[in-house]
Amino acid sequence: MPRSEFDLISRYFNRKSFIREDVELGIGDDCALLSTEKKRRIAVSTDTLVSGVHFLPDIDPADLAYKAFMINLSDLAAMGAEPAWLSLALTLPRIDEPWLQTFSDMLFEQLEAYRMQLIGGDTTRGPLSLTLTIQGLLIEKGGLTRSGAKKGDGIYVTGTLGDSAAGLAILKNTVTISDEADKRFLIKRHLRPQARIFQGKALNGLAHSAIDISDGFISDLQHILNASQCGAHIELSQLPYSPALKTYSNHEQALRWALSGGEDYELCFTLSPQYSHILENLFQRCRGPEVFYTKVGEVVSDFSGKITFFRDGEPVSMKISNITGYDHFDTYRRE
Amino acid sequence: MPRSEFDLISRYFNRKSFIREDVELGIGDDCALLSTEKKRRIAVSTDTLVSGVHFLPDIDPADLAYKAFMINLSDLAAMGAEPAWLSLALTLPRIDEPWLQTFSDMLFEQLEAYRMQLIGGDTTRGPLSLTLTIQGLLIEKGGLTRSGAKKGDGIYVTGTLGDSAAGLAILKNTVTISDEADKRFLIKRHLRPQARIFQGKALNGLAHSAIDISDGFISDLQHILNASQCGAHIELSQLPYSPALKTYSNHEQALRWALSGGEDYELCFTLSPQYSHILENLFQRCRGPEVFYTKVGEVVSDFSGKITFFRDGEPVSMKISNITGYDHFDTYRRE
Repeated sequence: MPRSEFDLISRYFNRKSFIREDVELGIGDDCALLSTEKKRRIAVSTDTLVSGVHFLPDIDPADLAYKAFMINLSDLAAMGAEPAWLSLALTLPRIDEPWLQTFSDMLFEQLEAYRMQLIGGDTTRGPLSLTLTIQGLLIEKGGLTRSGAKKGDGIYVTGTLGDSAAGLAILKNTVTISDEADKRFLIKRHLRPQARIFQGKALNGLAHSAIDISDGFISDLQHILNASQCGAHIELSQLPYSPALKTYSNHEQALRWALSGGEDYELCFTLSPQYSHILENLFQRCRGPEVFYTKVGEVVSDFSGKITFFRDGEPVSMKISNITGYDHFDTYRRE
Repeated sequence: MPRSEFDLISRYFNRKSFIREDVELGIGDDCALLSTEKKRRIAVSTDTLVSGVHFLPDIDPADLAYKAFMINLSDLAAMGAEPAWLSLALTLPRIDEPWLQTFSDMLFEQLEAYRMQLIGGDTTRGPLSLTLTIQGLLIEKGGLTRSGAKKGDGIYVTGTLGDSAAGLAILKNTVTISDEADKRFLIKRHLRPQARIFQGKALNGLAHSAIDISDGFISDLQHILNASQCGAHIELSQLPYSPALKTYSNHEQALRWALSGGEDYELCFTLSPQYSHILENLFQRCRGPEVFYTKVGEVVSDFSGKITFFRDGEPVSMKISNITGYDHFDTYRRE
């Protein structure tokens, strides 16, 4: 069994080494935080996408550009940062001009939408892959880290869970959805996720912790719990499903997608109960499409980071090993 | 014929798009420059290295870590910036622990030597490749861009030229060097280049323009000339050769390596004659191993960016097409 990428990173790269005073937050959160002056810090995050590992080799270049950008942007959302700069390293097997045209058109469309600038990168020949390094700014307010969750916090997610995994299953022909509109919706949720950048900014200074759901709800929540040294109670009946997934006949599969499907790029955050009443107003004032949020559980005192599941208030036993998150070292890999 | 990476980048990514006020210098130089406050700016540069394209597939992981770091650091040197932060995206075909141990040991050794911090990155499975995004700081003084060369400037290079290309040819068994010490020296110059970070910092605020020699002396000088809208006179008899290359019997090959071999990671810079007398003193005060410099030509008025070659003061004709620089889309590629 391959180690997960988390083990790998922490084992080899999370060493005690030279510590710079201007690095406020290094490896281990959604972004690093670099301070350049008292009231302004830079949030930095890097993502690599490899053909056949993170996306299907025949992906439309517009979908690829869109998704690579959104995945990277989602890390800034989870930090509550204002998007600013992008570096793009693009490795291509050959120079395919229509491909590049479509790819770059979509990339620049997204950059403009978020008032961002491409500041550099590298272009090389090799097996198709992309590495994006995004940078955002945090002014005055603290940034949404993973380590601030407190006992009693509500656990919230934005939007709905599991749609992206369902869309991927449809694309891979491992499930069939008869309703055409539902099918299109789920595929779109997989190919065109939406980074919750405005919600992240709104939550900055208010939420105690946040993460974007890239690996799967449980897996990402676990990162918050481990970093915050807390446990969680999760109420399964509260998990937010889209109408398309709600009507899907295999409920157990839908639950698995919601808990561990990954690539939803919704935000999971924890918030003190005293602020729960202002959330609705806060989210309504966000720019961009309207996004709802759902309280799915509560942070509890548990040093070991354990998650306990409930259904309609009754504890249920779930094997965590059956619902572990998305592993970039496995998914999409062809036999 | 594939387009060179320069054409590719400028064609697809150097568009007029959203312009941020805090981006002082975007795509097209060694680093982007980002301003976060009046007197402090950030220099950013990204490099990708792909197995079989930028390095031999059986490279020692210590050599790979060293070289990837130095190539990326060299961009900061060419900007005169103080090294600060590194993001590393590592794509690996499998998890090979001894490989990772050796690779990360060398990376951290270099990070410590330059008082830098690894601030993040990504680890994914796929064909072996690395993308490094380095960031450095520029305080007060302007940064060494490519566009400031002026008529009358001396054209200088640090160290010696062509050694790295000779070392690569030895590794690829396309040339034979009988002297064992020379052979080892040339291979080392290829595998263990030295970014001229201290010299770059010393030149900041003094040199009119600078670039690091990654693609080949002529190719990189051409970038300065194009950006500065000047021409150059180059005196071939002044090109600095190492003792190992000076004694190599095929003088024409040695010249080709020096002009276009690439991967020397020396600095090429232009300097007003009024400052030439302080160069020696300036370089002697640099930290790190002693590095000499050589004046190899002069910037002349020529809007078209033409390079004219001389040997012992007499003009010689050289076909530029025969000496074009290192192309990342060709080198190392196996049949």
